[in-house]
Amino acid sequence: MARRLCCAWIFLLLLLLPGPAAGGKLLVVPMVGSHWLSMQEVVEKLSQRGHEVVVLMPEVSWHMKASQAYEVLTYPVTQTLEELDGAFNDFVAAHLRGLPFPQNILDIYKSYVHVFNTFFGQCKDLFRSQETLKALNQSGFDALLTDPFFMCGATLANYLSLPFVFFMRGFGCDLHFKAPQCPSPPSYVPRVFTFNSDRMTFFQRVENALMSLLEHKYCDGFYSEALKLSSEVLQRDVSFIDLVHSASIWLMRFDFVFEYVRPVMPNMVFIGGINCAKKKPLPQEFEAIVNASGEHGIVVFSLGSMVSEIPMKKAMEIADALGTVPQTVLWRYTGPTPPNLPQNVKLVKWLPQNDLLAHPKTRAFITHGGSHGIYEGICNAVPMVLMPLFGDQMDNAKRVESRGAGLTLNILEMTSQDISTALRTVINDKTYKENIQRLSDLHLDRPIHPLDLAVHWVEFVMRHKGAPHLRPAAHDLNWVQYHSLDVLAFLLFVLLLSLFISFKCCLCCCRRFCGKKGRTKKAAKSKTH
Amino acid sequence: MARRLCCAWIFLLLLLLPGPAAGGKLLVVPMVGSHWLSMQEVVEKLSQRGHEVVVLMPEVSWHMKASQAYEVLTYPVTQTLEELDGAFNDFVAAHLRGLPFPQNILDIYKSYVHVFNTFFGQCKDLFRSQETLKALNQSGFDALLTDPFFMCGATLANYLSLPFVFFMRGFGCDLHFKAPQCPSPPSYVPRVFTFNSDRMTFFQRVENALMSLLEHKYCDGFYSEALKLSSEVLQRDVSFIDLVHSASIWLMRFDFVFEYVRPVMPNMVFIGGINCAKKKPLPQEFEAIVNASGEHGIVVFSLGSMVSEIPMKKAMEIADALGTVPQTVLWRYTGPTPPNLPQNVKLVKWLPQNDLLAHPKTRAFITHGGSHGIYEGICNAVPMVLMPLFGDQMDNAKRVESRGAGLTLNILEMTSQDISTALRTVINDKTYKENIQRLSDLHLDRPIHPLDLAVHWVEFVMRHKGAPHLRPAAHDLNWVQYHSLDVLAFLLFVLLLSLFISFKCCLCCCRRFCGKKGRTKKAAKSKTH
Repeated sequence: MARRLCCAWIFLLLLLLPGPAAGGKLLVVPMVGSHWLSMQEVVEKLSQRGHEVVVLMPEVSWHMKASQAYEVLTYPVTQTLEELDGAFNDFVAAHLRGLPFPQNILDIYKSYVHVFNTFFGQCKDLFRSQETLKALNQSGFDALLTDPFFMCGATLANYLSLPFVFFMRGFGCDLHFKAPQCPSPPSYVPRVFTFNSDRMTFFQRVENALMSLLEHKYCDGFYSEALKLSSEVLQRDVSFIDLVHSASIWLMRFDFVFEYVRPVMPNMVFIGGINCAKKKPLPQEFEAIVNASGEHGIVVFSLGSMVSEIPMKKAMEIADALGTVPQTVLWRYTGPTPPNLPQNVKLVKWLPQNDLLAHPKTRAFITHGGSHGIYEGICNAVPMVLMPLFGDQMDNAKRVESRGAGLTLNILEMTSQDISTALRTVINDKTYKENIQRLSDLHLDRPIHPLDLAVHWVEFVMRHKGAPHLRPAAHDLNWVQYHSLDVLAFLLFVLLLSLFISFKCCLCCCRRFCGKKGRTKKAAKSKTH
Repeated sequence: MARRLCCAWIFLLLLLLPGPAAGGKLLVVPMVGSHWLSMQEVVEKLSQRGHEVVVLMPEVSWHMKASQAYEVLTYPVTQTLEELDGAFNDFVAAHLRGLPFPQNILDIYKSYVHVFNTFFGQCKDLFRSQETLKALNQSGFDALLTDPFFMCGATLANYLSLPFVFFMRGFGCDLHFKAPQCPSPPSYVPRVFTFNSDRMTFFQRVENALMSLLEHKYCDGFYSEALKLSSEVLQRDVSFIDLVHSASIWLMRFDFVFEYVRPVMPNMVFIGGINCAKKKPLPQEFEAIVNASGEHGIVVFSLGSMVSEIPMKKAMEIADALGTVPQTVLWRYTGPTPPNLPQNVKLVKWLPQNDLLAHPKTRAFITHGGSHGIYEGICNAVPMVLMPLFGDQMDNAKRVESRGAGLTLNILEMTSQDISTALRTVINDKTYKENIQRLSDLHLDRPIHPLDLAVHWVEFVMRHKGAPHLRPAAHDLNWVQYHSLDVLAFLLFVLLLSLFISFKCCLCCCRRFCGKKGRTKKAAKSKTH
């Protein structure tokens, strides 16, 4: 603990030092919603370091507000907040409908395409706004920082011919590895939505291999509207890989205490846990609740910033389960109060998640398995019960579970009893605490804070107008060349040719030898006659 | 420049801060010779940070002296310094003999095996010294840091069951990528000794693919004695990969301004340029020479710390060429003075290489292409003329040349005219200076100094007794599983089976349909009759 404090002190001192920054100009194209939360910190830090940072924001968006820390450039959009909310609520609802296979898959896939198209509609509005485009064209940016999830930033970077940095958690398929030419052997690199770990049975490997063939198809489906617009804007046929492969640096919210170990590329920078803030004192009302919790402490429960309501039946089941533990449960929930809410459960509309998790009285964290929440759980060493809902959450949950640091529940099938058992297990079975503590110690023992790393690499791209020295030559090879199939065919041809010639030579020698022998015998025979 | 100074200041301040270290115990098994030079800095820094560092040293060795900065444990060896010198001189001589192909390859290969076996002889002596082994067994080390080039450290780490960190430039083949399960597509990752770049023609790719098949064979040849001893010591049959695959962290003296971009693994830490020291003032005699050089400045010439003498004929050719440039040439050379030594060339037995390269009057650097020298050239942005002799030097030289930052000469074939032309080109053609300046700017723009990075990861392994969370699951797969060949065979079988069943069904349907039709027709016919 003392060592960690000392580390933190060094990092703090480094942050306070007059940095080496010197006034670049950066365009930021964020993704609305929870993805913005950690990117915002990078943007603020870059602004503090003397750069002119312009955040491009649709007039209607989620979780994004104007700030004094950076300049905001808004553009008009045709969608209303209700339309965005509607698309997202439909998306969540599709995951909770519980239709039988394969209807559930088709239903969820449609909801994905719909939510992608709805949010990408804002990008279409951007490219319709001549005024905004003119302003951007005239601004002389050094680089562009974007979360490429909805593809607007990547399209804009290509349109403005700016070097760009991705800040991301990942796409819905492995294109964030395929595009930078990073090998992903399907034998031990599990694909998204398979929920496999890196140690797979034979049939899991079969499933994984099939998924690795399929995933590019469905990802193309997600981004069909984006590709159509990009082709129009860039006046050439673009594929998804065309749009993203030129990213100078991939800032990835990954850390290998949580992610499975796999090959990476030198232009990938890993900043998992960038969102873990320093512990701040709790607001008074929360401090009071925590202090009143006694020896049993508290449980923190949140399904993330994007989902604040679930069907009443589920909410009642959860409430039932929470009543079975002696801990006080702080539940972030904005839906109607379940009528069976037990005494030990406090519903709140908002909670200081990181500060609560950092409190020594916190015994467990019930989470939907979003990456921000999981990293906060890891940073603060709190065992987790995971109720994944959508996207990468089930894969995240499986990762935590495979590390022995939490238990995963299927939100569609879980009963009150399941929730209660899982919660009591992660609280009372000491191995969960030990495992998450080990992950936490490993995660926090790093040579440089992820925020400083992210800031450095964005500044690097601004200073050097990209990072072409980190771009592999593999980009210049086609599929056949990359896999050396032409070389293999050539070597095989040479081998067969050599065998054929050797065989022919042998045959020729044999014939000559046998022929000679034959003739000699014949001659000898005729002589004896 | 101001930005770089500011960066340097931050790093310096960070170094001066009371670090988070706390008394671990580290065993260091270095490689003698030039490899020790950069490792020594890590060892001294770890010692300064309060760790108990024990450096295991043969009684007879190169470039290694006792120091007050760390504890030294020597062990008796049977070889004399003359024997080591003899083996190494034979090795260098084999490269300068200029025999025709394929005799040269065989001759050089033999000299490699001889030098490996000679130096590994010291390791045999270590394992014969019961006293040393007893002392090591009783010492309770937390980890072992080693340069694995001659394999003694890796054998000892396995013997003592200690977590170990490799500090290295690379083996003579790509086993430093194969062992940690890092993919190396031969289509754009050039193999050692091919002198190819990452952009290859078809026939270079064929050569590279063949080399990638061959290299493990010759590497096994280099390490045959090491494997024999390791099998005896560890009382099981060990392969080269068995010995090294458990390394917790691979500290690699690589930087991608110099190395070709390629896939890497999360337990590889890149510390290229770790040897670039901060510029110190020049000793008086050198300062005087540099100041007297006038507007033309100086050229620094050294063939490294290991080779200080070359055949007189070559030395005279070089001397001739050096006389054609207006610069003063400082030549580190301990052999007999060439009789044609021009006025502008000063022979010295030793020179402060980094400080001379850092001097603004330095116009060019003539080097053998050892990685230490090249990084000093890059750090100080000095264009290079490269005269590679052995090992990775030709590959290094080709890398510098492919970046447009230097010119390579074939030491066997170069004439006086070639040397003179190359030297004048890198001095007078501004693109060489511009290119090396760009490489230097990119190389020095890093979030943390390589020395701090190396120290952090050694301490990490000491604190956590390894880094198992960075070990890929690929280690548990065999070759067939890793490449998904079993999955492919299964899918192919399923596909063929499906096709076969479909075909049979179709055939059956057709027969029934045709049979029915035939029968119907027959019936109809008989009715009409």
